[in-house]
Amino acid sequence: MLKIAIVGATGIVGQQAIVSLLGHPWFQITKLVASERSATKKYIDALRDANGSIRWWCPEELPADIANMVVEEAASFDPTSVDVIFSTMDAGPAKELEPKYAKTTPVISTASAFRYEPDTPILVGGVNMDHAALLAVQQKNRGWKGFISPKSNCTIAGLVVSLKPILDNFGVKQVVATSLQAMSGAGRTPGLSAMDMMENVVPYIAGEEPKVETEPQKILGKLAGDKIVNAPFGITATCTRVPVIDGHLVVAFVQTEKPCTPEDVKKVMTEYGKDFAELHLPSSPAHLIDVTDDPFRPQPRVDRDKGGGMTVTVGRIRKDPILENGIKYVCLAHNTKLGAAKGALQTAEYLVKNFLKLV
Amino acid sequence: MLKIAIVGATGIVGQQAIVSLLGHPWFQITKLVASERSATKKYIDALRDANGSIRWWCPEELPADIANMVVEEAASFDPTSVDVIFSTMDAGPAKELEPKYAKTTPVISTASAFRYEPDTPILVGGVNMDHAALLAVQQKNRGWKGFISPKSNCTIAGLVVSLKPILDNFGVKQVVATSLQAMSGAGRTPGLSAMDMMENVVPYIAGEEPKVETEPQKILGKLAGDKIVNAPFGITATCTRVPVIDGHLVVAFVQTEKPCTPEDVKKVMTEYGKDFAELHLPSSPAHLIDVTDDPFRPQPRVDRDKGGGMTVTVGRIRKDPILENGIKYVCLAHNTKLGAAKGALQTAEYLVKNFLKLV
Amino acid sequence: MLKIAIVGATGIVGQQAIVSLLGHPWFQITKLVASERSATKKYIDALRDANGSIRWWCPEELPADIANMVVEEAASFDPTSVDVIFSTMDAGPAKELEPKYAKTTPVISTASAFRYEPDTPILVGGVNMDHAALLAVQQKNRGWKGFISPKSNCTIAGLVVSLKPILDNFGVKQVVATSLQAMSGAGRTPGLSAMDMMENVVPYIAGEEPKVETEPQKILGKLAGDKIVNAPFGITATCTRVPVIDGHLVVAFVQTEKPCTPEDVKKVMTEYGKDFAELHLPSSPAHLIDVTDDPFRPQPRVDRDKGGGMTVTVGRIRKDPILENGIKYVCLAHNTKLGAAKGALQTAEYLVKNFLKLV
Amino acid sequence: MLKIAIVGATGIVGQQAIVSLLGHPWFQITKLVASERSATKKYIDALRDANGSIRWWCPEELPADIANMVVEEAASFDPTSVDVIFSTMDAGPAKELEPKYAKTTPVISTASAFRYEPDTPILVGGVNMDHAALLAVQQKNRGWKGFISPKSNCTIAGLVVSLKPILDNFGVKQVVATSLQAMSGAGRTPGLSAMDMMENVVPYIAGEEPKVETEPQKILGKLAGDKIVNAPFGITATCTRVPVIDGHLVVAFVQTEKPCTPEDVKKVMTEYGKDFAELHLPSSPAHLIDVTDDPFRPQPRVDRDKGGGMTVTVGRIRKDPILENGIKYVCLAHNTKLGAAKGALQTAEYLVKNFLKLV
Repeated sequence: MLKIAIVGATGIVGQQAIVSLLGHPWFQITKLVASERSATKKYIDALRDANGSIRWWCPEELPADIANMVVEEAASFDPTSVDVIFSTMDAGPAKELEPKYAKTTPVISTASAFRYEPDTPILVGGVNMDHAALLAVQQKNRGWKGFISPKSNCTIAGLVVSLKPILDNFGVKQVVATSLQAMSGAGRTPGLSAMDMMENVVPYIAGEEPKVETEPQKILGKLAGDKIVNAPFGITATCTRVPVIDGHLVVAFVQTEKPCTPEDVKKVMTEYGKDFAELHLPSSPAHLIDVTDDPFRPQPRVDRDKGGGMTVTVGRIRKDPILENGIKYVCLAHNTKLGAAKGALQTAEYLVKNFLKLV
Repeated sequence: MLKIAIVGATGIVGQQAIVSLLGHPWFQITKLVASERSATKKYIDALRDANGSIRWWCPEELPADIANMVVEEAASFDPTSVDVIFSTMDAGPAKELEPKYAKTTPVISTASAFRYEPDTPILVGGVNMDHAALLAVQQKNRGWKGFISPKSNCTIAGLVVSLKPILDNFGVKQVVATSLQAMSGAGRTPGLSAMDMMENVVPYIAGEEPKVETEPQKILGKLAGDKIVNAPFGITATCTRVPVIDGHLVVAFVQTEKPCTPEDVKKVMTEYGKDFAELHLPSSPAHLIDVTDDPFRPQPRVDRDKGGGMTVTVGRIRKDPILENGIKYVCLAHNTKLGAAKGALQTAEYLVKNFLKLV
Repeated sequence: MLKIAIVGATGIVGQQAIVSLLGHPWFQITKLVASERSATKKYIDALRDANGSIRWWCPEELPADIANMVVEEAASFDPTSVDVIFSTMDAGPAKELEPKYAKTTPVISTASAFRYEPDTPILVGGVNMDHAALLAVQQKNRGWKGFISPKSNCTIAGLVVSLKPILDNFGVKQVVATSLQAMSGAGRTPGLSAMDMMENVVPYIAGEEPKVETEPQKILGKLAGDKIVNAPFGITATCTRVPVIDGHLVVAFVQTEKPCTPEDVKKVMTEYGKDFAELHLPSSPAHLIDVTDDPFRPQPRVDRDKGGGMTVTVGRIRKDPILENGIKYVCLAHNTKLGAAKGALQTAEYLVKNFLKLV
Repeated sequence: MLKIAIVGATGIVGQQAIVSLLGHPWFQITKLVASERSATKKYIDALRDANGSIRWWCPEELPADIANMVVEEAASFDPTSVDVIFSTMDAGPAKELEPKYAKTTPVISTASAFRYEPDTPILVGGVNMDHAALLAVQQKNRGWKGFISPKSNCTIAGLVVSLKPILDNFGVKQVVATSLQAMSGAGRTPGLSAMDMMENVVPYIAGEEPKVETEPQKILGKLAGDKIVNAPFGITATCTRVPVIDGHLVVAFVQTEKPCTPEDVKKVMTEYGKDFAELHLPSSPAHLIDVTDDPFRPQPRVDRDKGGGMTVTVGRIRKDPILENGIKYVCLAHNTKLGAAKGALQTAEYLVKNFLKLV
């Protein structure tokens, strides 16, 4: 078993990381790491708020052995005490601490701090595994034994999976996207106000649209030597928040380079990702994409847990009535599974198996 | 006072029509008309369901004098007994009965039955009042003393208002729209299932997208002699249902003919509709469009009631990062006020004052 | 016109106080007062948050003249500059500042700071107006020209109104109550978390049950000389939070001293409060209680706005199957209207007319 | 493996029964049975609505082998073709068909049709397993080889589990209960209206209170010879519907015969059900009751799935301030797991193992 530390363990993404790793066949959580405020406390005590309530937000129960682990402090944490570090810190501390850890130890990160570095790939399971080679460039550039491998923004997690087979088969020229995002993406402390979200939609998420409009081109880009050449298409997005707990829905209007029918798109999506599935990574679903013919689907509450929250559901694929080579569809991904901790874990699994060759 | 009948009075739109007309300075409800099932009953008794509950759905209280009116039957209703008919029937009965009424009496309709007839305008307050002249063509064509004037689809009510000043000033080339529609648009008997809508989004509304993709071009078209020449732009839409009671939000990506800045768009929207406002129609708001600089707005629950539910709120106007001459924004309209009965009433007010010259 | 200051004007209750006073026939808002943080700013600027959003939470629009008033600081505010002070501060500052103001000026307060003082009544419109005489005792005891008149806890606002006619006619022996409380009662900064309240119930509200279990006995007590003798019945309560915006629902199991039928209770509730209504206070509803026969009512969203949010709706009155002299019912009151600012305003109206005799 | 038929298989409870039985170690679903409308169709086709949508409502995926089973008709179904029948029919058809099946075959039923027959127990897992002996009386009385064993009303499922250890240790004199019930209890066709439930509470559930007020006394009664002597305490209830998907919360005010402290109650609840757990029935949880010290719990969305939806969570145990020997608490049970199909399955497991001795 590989020893894994979760840094940022008390936050909502850290909690999801814990849940993702429960009973994992390759990884064992041996360290829980957090800020000074939590350090030296038992994990369960670090979760208590001022009212004494335990702020454990996952539906899964917190196992007693995890609850009783003593939290270490991130600033003084010894990265060589584990084989892999799962960083779920906020961007600020991530910027400072992840490079320190990476000197010696592989860091899988859910933070955005290093996503836009030229020598850093944004790996998405099954989409751009060849980009993992860029981590060797990163190691060389920076003189690290470890590396930093960040996950993508959660909103595009489903979009890039759905775009990949279209890009490979028909080319992508342009994407117009509107997201209807779940509330869990806003975190928990304090997160969104119930009075703001009840029976309402908020048509803005600070800082989100620039990520949606730029990350996919890098993820879907081509590795050329020691850098990635971005995929040459444009994306424009409007990101909204809807009263849903989990599951980001993206309404996409895609123009392809070559003409294709909705049936063509359905076919390439359905067949997509078989080789990745055959790696049999523990967190991978049997199908990366599930295409539904029910026009009323995908729905966040109903479809988000498909494939353990790792399958993207695509529906309403149809010909666009006005856009040249236009295809319209709706895609859904679980933002706190595929789009966050579990998606990062899937990448970790790929890297320890195929890049580090540790399992 | 002009005598007005509400036909389809027991349905949700009929109820909203009643509310819109309470205390109206020009119109007095003198007849409530509905299907055979309700006819000869007191209105309040016609609203009772099997459990004895009174299915009056408006937040406003049902006045006693309306409650006690005896409902007449639509099939045998004498249209000459009133000056104006406010039809809120479903499309089926509207198709059959509205022409009978229109032989003698003006019919303002919320039904879609006649929207697509070449000699029938789809009037939207302040947007295309000149199209009212087509009603004279309709009268002549069909030998009617009255006419049928249908309102638009509720989803586009806000979109066309927001597009009109753009079209007039910069031209419109193309619109990509995603709607986040409120549940009240689905009616009440039975309407949507609570289990389907709770903490969820349904990405499809049967029959909606074709209306959104075609009605605006007619509404924003030019009257040329005895017909309307559609505005020459394309619209593509995806319509979704969100857990909101009232207020349809439309996320719009608009390409204009001439370049314009967000400030330009804000300016023409803010100045728009002053001449219409100066008609001082009883149901018209002081501002047809309210442009907000708060990026978190418009929000359905918070902004829908602006201007008595008749003002369209536009926010997040910004330059599109990839579309040529592209502008992005979000607009909100109250689907059961501007988008339904009260919007139709505003049209009725315009017609009795400026077309029929009865007030 | 009487000059009124709102102290605590930027908070949610202060905002509701402003709305309650718009267009008031007797009071004119001449001062807006708040903490140091807001002082010297224009009111609308004091409402801006870090994102620049204006945190005005009322559905009613903020009038321009109010928006442009310059906020004064509570600590240095001169109470003699107004005729009446409307205090919507939190309990802490209220404890300190209200007595300073009361030396010279009547203070109507929504805070709990002075509710439990023996020389201070908790006035509820139409329920215990005779308790106003205790304010003269308070003035004498404390050497004040003004006074402090606090409103009740919002949860019991509807309960005490519904209990009063039962108490007067049949006596009350015991009350078992479960509240289903709206989220607005928890305030706005930060208020409740959307993730906690979505599709959920929280069965606890810190500090609420002791208030529900003790305030009604004082409010429904008898003024005897210079003190109130509490009504001699017990209340036990469980208070829960439900995903509703406004409107506290209380499920009550009441045992009376004398036997009575549901019809008896309906009759005394329906007839209740006529003398108070005849005072024609501007904020008073035509009926203090509206008894509904529809078993599915009262419902918070549907019934809360009755009588301008000042009418209590009672439904499901029925004989208890096991409790001696037991009656069961459900009552609903608008927690931010009757239960907060507007309820306090109604008391202010009574006091300026009947106690201070200023109008 | 025992062969089991699900009768009423297309309804929501039937679907939950299917899910409960997936991968079951003792039972294999060999027949799906429904009304004439569904008979002879493949199961998945029987689920399709007029729009072509598959009305499968469980979050778990429908397995292909179940989807492809051909549905048989309930009226002509041969009960001898299976070992056990799981009836999830409505009360009407249950009244007629269950006795026909019971002539030859054990029937576990979620319907209320036979609950109140003197020779029929209402078995609740771990609470009254000794009542199973009454099934032998039923068989003798009616000349049946099989039997009918109905589950309890879903609202009381958690209440009776929480009352049992109190009754055994301290006696129960009286219960005042208010339920906050989830929407899934109202079924799916059509179920509740989204417009009625959004941001609202409905304080009435037709037919529910009489069941809550009478079933517990039978379930908690004593088997004496060939009949059950009801437990001698009274219950009064108000049942409300809240916007929650699953999980019925009951607010209880209990008066015991002997005095007891909250700590006493916590202790007997925590220790309760160990002997039943030791039977290791496949659907039984490790703990029948989980007592939480967090005052903000139990919450429906957060706690309903504990123990696979079979554990009752009790919180807020405290001394009542006015009731003699009074204890207050809140309890939560998953209404469509413990309170419906999975609860019935747990009973089926007990009966095949300990009454029929088939495993």
